[in-house]
Amino acid sequence: MNRVFNFSAGPSMLPVPVLEKAASELLCYGDSGMSVMEMSHRSPDYEAIIADAEKMLRELMQIPENYKILFLQGGASTQFSAVPMNLIARTGKADYVVSGQFSGKAFKEAQKMGYDVKCVATTKDDNFDHVPALTRDMFREDAAYVHICYNNTIYGTKYPEIPDTGDIPLVADMSSCILSEPVDVSRFGVIYAGAQKNVAPAGVTIVIVREDLLEYADPKMPTMLEWKIMAENDSMYNTPPTYTIYMAKLVFEYLLSIGGLTAMKAQNEKKAAILYNYLDSQSYYIAPVKKESRSLMNVTFVTGDADLDKKFASEAAKNGMKNLKGHRSVGGMRASIYNAMPIAGVEKLVEFMKDFAANNPKA
Amino acid sequence: MNRVFNFSAGPSMLPVPVLEKAASELLCYGDSGMSVMEMSHRSPDYEAIIADAEKMLRELMQIPENYKILFLQGGASTQFSAVPMNLIARTGKADYVVSGQFSGKAFKEAQKMGYDVKCVATTKDDNFDHVPALTRDMFREDAAYVHICYNNTIYGTKYPEIPDTGDIPLVADMSSCILSEPVDVSRFGVIYAGAQKNVAPAGVTIVIVREDLLEYADPKMPTMLEWKIMAENDSMYNTPPTYTIYMAKLVFEYLLSIGGLTAMKAQNEKKAAILYNYLDSQSYYIAPVKKESRSLMNVTFVTGDADLDKKFASEAAKNGMKNLKGHRSVGGMRASIYNAMPIAGVEKLVEFMKDFAANNPKA
Repeated sequence: MNRVFNFSAGPSMLPVPVLEKAASELLCYGDSGMSVMEMSHRSPDYEAIIADAEKMLRELMQIPENYKILFLQGGASTQFSAVPMNLIARTGKADYVVSGQFSGKAFKEAQKMGYDVKCVATTKDDNFDHVPALTRDMFREDAAYVHICYNNTIYGTKYPEIPDTGDIPLVADMSSCILSEPVDVSRFGVIYAGAQKNVAPAGVTIVIVREDLLEYADPKMPTMLEWKIMAENDSMYNTPPTYTIYMAKLVFEYLLSIGGLTAMKAQNEKKAAILYNYLDSQSYYIAPVKKESRSLMNVTFVTGDADLDKKFASEAAKNGMKNLKGHRSVGGMRASIYNAMPIAGVEKLVEFMKDFAANNPKA
Repeated sequence: MNRVFNFSAGPSMLPVPVLEKAASELLCYGDSGMSVMEMSHRSPDYEAIIADAEKMLRELMQIPENYKILFLQGGASTQFSAVPMNLIARTGKADYVVSGQFSGKAFKEAQKMGYDVKCVATTKDDNFDHVPALTRDMFREDAAYVHICYNNTIYGTKYPEIPDTGDIPLVADMSSCILSEPVDVSRFGVIYAGAQKNVAPAGVTIVIVREDLLEYADPKMPTMLEWKIMAENDSMYNTPPTYTIYMAKLVFEYLLSIGGLTAMKAQNEKKAAILYNYLDSQSYYIAPVKKESRSLMNVTFVTGDADLDKKFASEAAKNGMKNLKGHRSVGGMRASIYNAMPIAGVEKLVEFMKDFAANNPKA
């Protein structure tokens, strides 16, 4: 077995101890006589697993008691529809900030569904090289919610702080930064995240929703997308993605064992600093993102020469560092350095970047 | 490791060779240097996995070329909403047959969403102890589709043959019988199934849809529920449940290796016959389902005494046969004997039934 450093934007690396534990109990979980994959979701063994997953996530993120935690399916993209269907009836309109491709998709989805939504700020004209500066007066007083994408995977940007939306519930897609550092959940109305970056394999979506926001669902909406129904049924209105939730539980357990999100933040800042400090110290690579918007999770850079970029990703892969090619809509390189990427992976990448620059002078 | 016989209605048993293979490559798939759980869904390794899954399913079920195969999320319950949103615009109305709890839920969901749907037949008054006899004249000529649940997990019933709906597309929930025997896919407009009985762990939903039926989607529906969008994107409009699809692929591969659905049908008929023949040969247990509607997958029976039923399930569990308790809405016992249940499991169950009857005379 020769594992590589996988810089994929998602699905992405999982902690090795988690994978080892999963492999060890794949055919038989404890004394249950079966794999977790084979367990009835109504069995005591499985009910303990999902209850533990919820409890551990609540502890990790310090989620207040008046927030429900849901384990759903369909990815963040399904929440692009679910958010307006569950919330917009609060006032009838909602505001969106477009800071990249996924926040743009969320906005367009709400538009497509016929809702009264407004894009109140975007950095599209700057090719999303930073997140918009947001002030409270930019939002409509009677907006049902303000929607943001907290970390923009494709561009490598992140909000430097939680935007102030006053009394308007803030809804944040945190797919690519959840669990990367502590966050004050009480500042949000809803947080949602696809699992496949920092939580688990793809196939489960976490929704954290303030209880008072469960009362506005469109009565004609698909039942499976209705947060209140899922909250009332402890995420088991139908069969949940049982094994993927079990994998999330193993990740939560692992994160708690290594010091929780405070420890994770320190490690993530260290990893990002290794890369950003190197990028700032030289001129061969260009880091397009404005410093105040830099992501801890996704670090983008280019050589300025598309052929060299291609060669970089290809040679890195041969050296055990995979998936460094930037998103197809952006080009260049992107190093996604989620929680499970070890410091050694980032150090190896920087050494490779130095060698590559030395060996491939620009014309 | 001491594996039990797991008679759960779903999630349920998976073939041991499949679990062993999954365990063996959990930390590293081939020479990829990573787990399938960690693979980008856009990587060549993963694209080969999902393409193989589709190809193998097409071969197993002999799915004609003019049908698309989709790997979606949200379970059959999400399809209860997706079916009318994708299809009803064909004519504006649809007919439903209610043969149990899930077909009833499908009907109620379409009603809740405000669609013009009609229940054309139900066996509710007989406590769903058989499926309705369906003839072509029972359906509205201008129905966009007729919806049935082909095998009723809770009650243990199944259609003895494919109902004739003439030119009206037949839509079937096959969650609890897909892959149990060959079926003439060309007789259906749409087949859908949650994976957690015969296909894979919970978390992926298979939709098989005739291409000409992709043109009727409600333009305001959630994009993620739109079959056409998913078909155009090879089920990768967003990140699919990558690992669960990989597990499905391992199951398909295994089924092909042991002779496909013809072999599976022979084995399933043998298993069911062992149980039904015993049930028909004695009077201690009562099998409530009418013979012509008996399911190959879910076998229900009662002692007629709720305390004895409870004792039965409890003692069976102590003897390595778990989850024999009937559904909470029905009571009694239910032995779900899906593809992965070995003949030895059914034989052991019948031996136990005999012993239990001998040792627990009725008052």
